[in-house]
Parts: sequence; C-alpha cells; structure tokens
Amino acid sequence: MSNFFELMKIDDFIQLASKQMNKNITEEIVQITEVLDRIVTKDIFSPVNLPNFTRSVMDGYAVIAKDTYGANENIPVFLECVSEVKMGEEAHQAIQSGQCIKVATGGMLPINANAVVMIEDTEEISSSEIEISQAVAEKDNIVLKGEDLEKGELLLKKGHRIRPQDIGALAGIGMTRIPVYKKLNVAVFSTGDELIPPEKEPALGEIRDINSYAITSFVKQAKANVEMCGIIKDDHETLLNAIKSKLTDYDMILLSGGSSVGTRDLTIQVLETLEKESILAHGVAIKPGKPTILSYIQKTLIIGLPGHPASSIVVFKNVVEPLLQVMSGEINPLQQQSKKVIKAKLNRNIVSDKGRDEFIRVFVEQDNHELIAHPILGKSSLITTLVKANGLLKCPIGYEGISKDEIVTIELFS
Amino acid sequence: MSNFFELMKIDDFIQLASKQMNKNITEEIVQITEVLDRIVTKDIFSPVNLPNFTRSVMDGYAVIAKDTYGANENIPVFLECVSEVKMGEEAHQAIQSGQCIKVATGGMLPINANAVVMIEDTEEISSSEIEISQAVAEKDNIVLKGEDLEKGELLLKKGHRIRPQDIGALAGIGMTRIPVYKKLNVAVFSTGDELIPPEKEPALGEIRDINSYAITSFVKQAKANVEMCGIIKDDHETLLNAIKSKLTDYDMILLSGGSSVGTRDLTIQVLETLEKESILAHGVAIKPGKPTILSYIQKTLIIGLPGHPASSIVVFKNVVEPLLQVMSGEINPLQQQSKKVIKAKLNRNIVSDKGRDEFIRVFVEQDNHELIAHPILGKSSLITTLVKANGLLKCPIGYEGISKDEIVTIELFS
Repeated sequence: MSNFFELMKIDDFIQLASKQMNKNITEEIVQITEVLDRIVTKDIFSPVNLPNFTRSVMDGYAVIAKDTYGANENIPVFLECVSEVKMGEEAHQAIQSGQCIKVATGGMLPINANAVVMIEDTEEISSSEIEISQAVAEKDNIVLKGEDLEKGELLLKKGHRIRPQDIGALAGIGMTRIPVYKKLNVAVFSTGDELIPPEKEPALGEIRDINSYAITSFVKQAKANVEMCGIIKDDHETLLNAIKSKLTDYDMILLSGGSSVGTRDLTIQVLETLEKESILAHGVAIKPGKPTILSYIQKTLIIGLPGHPASSIVVFKNVVEPLLQVMSGEINPLQQQSKKVIKAKLNRNIVSDKGRDEFIRVFVEQDNHELIAHPILGKSSLITTLVKANGLLKCPIGYEGISKDEIVTIELFS
Repeated sequence: MSNFFELMKIDDFIQLASKQMNKNITEEIVQITEVLDRIVTKDIFSPVNLPNFTRSVMDGYAVIAKDTYGANENIPVFLECVSEVKMGEEAHQAIQSGQCIKVATGGMLPINANAVVMIEDTEEISSSEIEISQAVAEKDNIVLKGEDLEKGELLLKKGHRIRPQDIGALAGIGMTRIPVYKKLNVAVFSTGDELIPPEKEPALGEIRDINSYAITSFVKQAKANVEMCGIIKDDHETLLNAIKSKLTDYDMILLSGGSSVGTRDLTIQVLETLEKESILAHGVAIKPGKPTILSYIQKTLIIGLPGHPASSIVVFKNVVEPLLQVMSGEINPLQQQSKKVIKAKLNRNIVSDKGRDEFIRVFVEQDNHELIAHPILGKSSLITTLVKANGLLKCPIGYEGISKDEIVTIELFS
C-alpha cells in the first residue's frame, strides 16, 4: 500500500496541537459545591489560620504539661478541675498550675493550657478532682492555631485539578467561590451518507451512527462539555456550514467518520476552504487510526477521526484525551503514572506494525492468582472488539511484536 | 488506651453491610445519552444483526474473489466495472464473473460479490475497465452481516457498568432506552456543636464544616446521588429527627463528625432509639478511622464516620466506597485490579499499628526516573495532610512497619 500521506508520531502530533492552542482558555468563578474536577487558575493561599484557635484532638483534660511530669499509673498526679470547655464556644477561663479544665475533641484550649491528657488516662475522683495517670509533653493531643494551614500558606497550585479533599480544605478556610478555568467545549459530528440515528430502523445499505455516541461519551468522561451535533452528509457545503457554525463557541470539533479516501479528501478540502493553511497534519503513526487529520482554524482545534469505531476510539484515548488535558489547563506531573495500568501475562504471540505505535485491544482476566491478557482480534470496524476489551496494550514504533508469556503493561479503560 | 469497643476487620465490615442490603435496588429505563457509568440490570442481547448487510471496510472494487486469483503487479487481471454502490443505499445490481462494482468504505456489497480489492491495488484503465494487481481471498476487506454482533448475541452482562464504547455498541443495535439500576441516594450530615457553614466567619471555638464538603464530593466521585444535609447539633432529638427524615428515601446516611466519645455515644443511643438492634458494628480495625459505626435501619445503611477529616476520608475510601460499589449492583471481577495503583520507593522507615490496617498518606513524585513515596506525617485532624497527599499506602494488620527503600504499592486518589 502506498503511503499517500506523511505519518506524524503521536507525541509530535500532541505537541503541535497544544502549541497552537493560544491559551484562550478563560477563568470563571464557581461555587464550592460545583467545583469538583475543575482546574484552579491561580495559586490559592489561605486567607485565615486553620484552625483559628488551638484545639484539643482528644476527649480529656486541658493541662499545663509540666504539672503532669512524672505521672504514671503507680504514682498519679491530682489536678483540680475548675471548669469545662463547651463545644463551639470560646474558652474564657484560664488555668493555673495545678488546675485542669475538661475539654472534648475539637474544643478550644483554655488560656495557659498547652496539652491535653486523654480521658482514658484519667479518673474522676470527684467533680473537682481528677487523677492523671499518664504524663504528657507540651503540645500533646492538641492542634495549634494555624497548624493545618497558616494564614498566607499555599493550599492549591495553579493548574491543580480539584479533588474531594481539596474541597474539604477550601470549605475549612471559607473559600466558597473558586477561580477555575472554563470547561472546554467540544462539538462532535459524525459524517457519512450511510449513517442514520440509532432510533431509526436501517434500510439495506444504512447503518446506525455508533461513533457520535461513543466519542461523545468519551469526551464526557474527560470532563469537558460536549455537544453531540448529529450526522452530516458527505457534502462540501453541508460540512463547511457545520464546521463554521461551531468555530466561535467551541474549543475543539471532532469529526468522526470519513474512513474512505474520498471523505477524508472532502474533509481536507473543506478545512482548506475555511483557512488555506489550516491542516497541521494528516496521518498519525498509530494503528489503528492512521487517517487522522489535525487542523486549527481561528481558535478551534479540529480533529478528523477515522470512521471505523475501534480506530476512532484508539485515537481518542491516545491523542484526543491527552490533548483535552493539556488544553484544560491541568498541570499534573504524575499524569502518566496516574493512569489505570496493570501488569498481565500475554497469552499468545502478537505481531505488530513496526512503523507505528500499535494499540492492541485486550481483555485482562484473573486466572487463579495471575492476570492474563487476551488480545481481542478483529477488524477495527467492529465496535464489539472494544466492548469485549477492558484495556489497550501498546506495542511502540520499532517493535515487531510481543511474545507469548511476556509480562505486559496494559492501560485499562476507566 | 483501653479498647472500649470491639474492632471489626474491614472486609468483615463490608461483608456484613452488604449482606444487610436486601437488594432493594430497583430498575429504571434511561435514555442512551444519559446512561454512561450506569449499571445494567440484565443481560443485554442484540435484537438485530450488526451490520445488517455485508459491507466493505475499504475503498475499492467488490469482486468475486476467484476472479482475482493469480493477479499480481506483473500479471494483472482486468475486470469490467459495471456500476458503483452509492453510500447508504442498497446494492441492487449483482455482479457476474469477470465483473466488479466500485464501493467505498462502509458501502454494501453487491449480490454475488464476496471480497473487495483495495483501491491502492487497482488502476482505472477506463470507466468500465479496472486493472487488478493483487489477488484477494473470499471475505477479504469486508465485514459480514452480523459479524460485529449477531441477532441474539450477548452484548453486556448484568451488573456491567456502561462505558463509552458500550454506548457506541448500544447505538449500533438501536437500543436507545437501557434498563439500569437506580442510582443510590446518599445523605451526608455533619454533627458537632462547634461546626459552622464555610461561608460564615468563625468565632473563637467555632470551626468551619470540612467533612460535609469533602465527603459529599467523594460520594459524587463514586457516581451516587448525594444530598449535603448540613450541620446538626449534638442533641438527641435533633439527630433522631435528622436520621428519621432520610430513612425512607435514602440508601445510605453518612454521619460525619462525632469524634468524641460523647458524640459517638449519642449517635449510638439515637440509632438504638430508632431500632433496638440496629448497631451492626462499632469500631473498625483501621487506622486512622477506628471509631466507625455501622448500623442498618429499615432499608437504610447508616455509617457513623469519625470526625477528624483525614480519618473520615480514609474510612470513606476503604469502607464506604467499596460498599457503594456492592450496593450499586456493579459486578466487576477486575475491580481490585482496576484501581489506580503504582509502585514507588518509600523514602523513610514507617512504623505501623500491628492490630489494624493502617493507611499512610503519601505524596508520590518522580525523581529522575524513579517514583518516590514520601509519607505525609501529621495528625488525622489535619485536612491538609490529605491535600498534600496523592495516594494511600496500606500497611496491613500484622505488620509493624515498612522499611526505607522498600518498593511499595500505592493507591492513588482519582
């Protein structure tokens, strides 16, 4: 087969695409209850001390630590209990040497107290006399004012994706309106004269649109806003108008379909009509998925995905998803490591295309105490090859295959 | 410290809780566009053949394979091109031996044709004469009717969580209304007289509610419906009414807070008032997080989480999240393996509680080509220990610690 276009390596493709995105992503202020998974636009510093007073982390008695020195079960120390701290209230009364004040977990430490003896290490002789059977050091069983976060301390870095525990911390410092990047807007089209919506009954020659539904769902999973824009016919004017209509408001347009040379040529023509030099790449060194088009018009990245379902999904996972992450503003050095990857034993030899990164659909299952990876064979036009698979095995450029019984690393689907 | 309650192992706790859930989870029918991450309630079989006609997977010429036998670049075969298949239309015209019909990717195969020669292996001598320079075998470059899915073939198993590619396949077979389990409803309360909502300014002794916000977000991440029900005072009547009000409509109530012995006792009293034998367990062999309460009233699982933020989050990730998965109806044998886990080198010795599963908060970072895990030390009352962490390292019951430079397995936060 002749190589009628140049192939670009995946990483180069992603780098080229991200360079073109002129950081037109803007900020919005979002309520704390809606901020999960959003990306902060700036370093977030604490405006307050957390906690804003020294607290007990145990039920017990607030003491001056040195009053307890030497106390043990055989030689206890006796302290005068002069009060109790009410939860949620200021500890007004100070203690003096020889005294203690009852305090529950989370209660404010009284003035002069510098430690808490756990209730388990005490005995109430009378309401005013407490036996202490365990010495404590200064700062034992308390959290100091500002120990969780000091006023002015960095809480979240610019580019951080907000997790549930971060939301907890934001609540703790009273920051309920958070500056985050706007979500990316992605439009998904399927192209092809043979396509019909899934709710319709196909006549002979017609086929239900699979890619719109799969790709839209993958975009959702990647936390971007997505509009499923339906099916467009393989026609210059129709495709031109469809793309034009989304250029202003969308960060990315995904055109799925057009597996045939004719449709791909049509897509390229339309993109060049819109902007002469818009095509950045046609053809990626990926298998399946070679006939992928990358284009950039105004502020919108346009990606022509192959029409075969398995091809378009492999390209989505390995090209579009990383691009969405870069474009979202997320900065996460652990990204590569934080994917769901497992090691499994390959159950047969596989042959791979030396000239491309080949992604083999696999089903990983537990067999006794071993994880076994079964390659799912089948044409890239079959969506069920991906339904049967639970992960992708990458055989990089330069490799001619992988042998049976090798331990391989597999990226599982979410 | 005396052991004033019995500790239950995590797995026993989860098993006990799941046993109590009498599968009261019910079905609903959901539109395909909203069905991502939902769990199917029954085996899904294809009502149709996919595709419903034999198609080409390449641009080229539909042929009778044996007409091409022996063809190569030196000795080509010449076929008469009698027609072209229009995309999306039925291929009405049959071919006879010696003939071919032009077809694009996805086009229907004409009657009598049984293979496609790729366009790259042909030359158009005239509109009616095609030179074939490559022999094809029967079934080459075509997808047979029903090859992706046969009518009656199993597509998705009961208990399967629907992924983007599954949605593609459901669209492909025209199944746009899917039977799935209703989402679980979870109510989250924070208890504590010292708590105030984050938008308020705390007086001395008061602290902003961290747990409601963190726990609610973790429930969202676990794909359940969640209602953040706010702060309730440490008072028998208030807590009783709060729980009562959610018993009918919620599958799970999470009470977060009540780290003190007094609050825990109050929670237990209230639960026993509602139903005498409701308490299934108090105390889990987990660190941090020991003072966790498990209770079951009517059809609702009630879990009393510890009040210290880091404790309640560790219990959520290791007890509540697995429970939500069991209760959701999901059946996924790979669940354990599909977590985000990585291997890293521990950068210091850690000592662990031999009697409990201890979860150490760690920050994993890349140092040259190595991943290094730094334990985050700090009291479990500090939410920032979890903000600084990107994963949890488990040191199981029976272990007294882990040595510096050991390679450890860490479960990363999502």
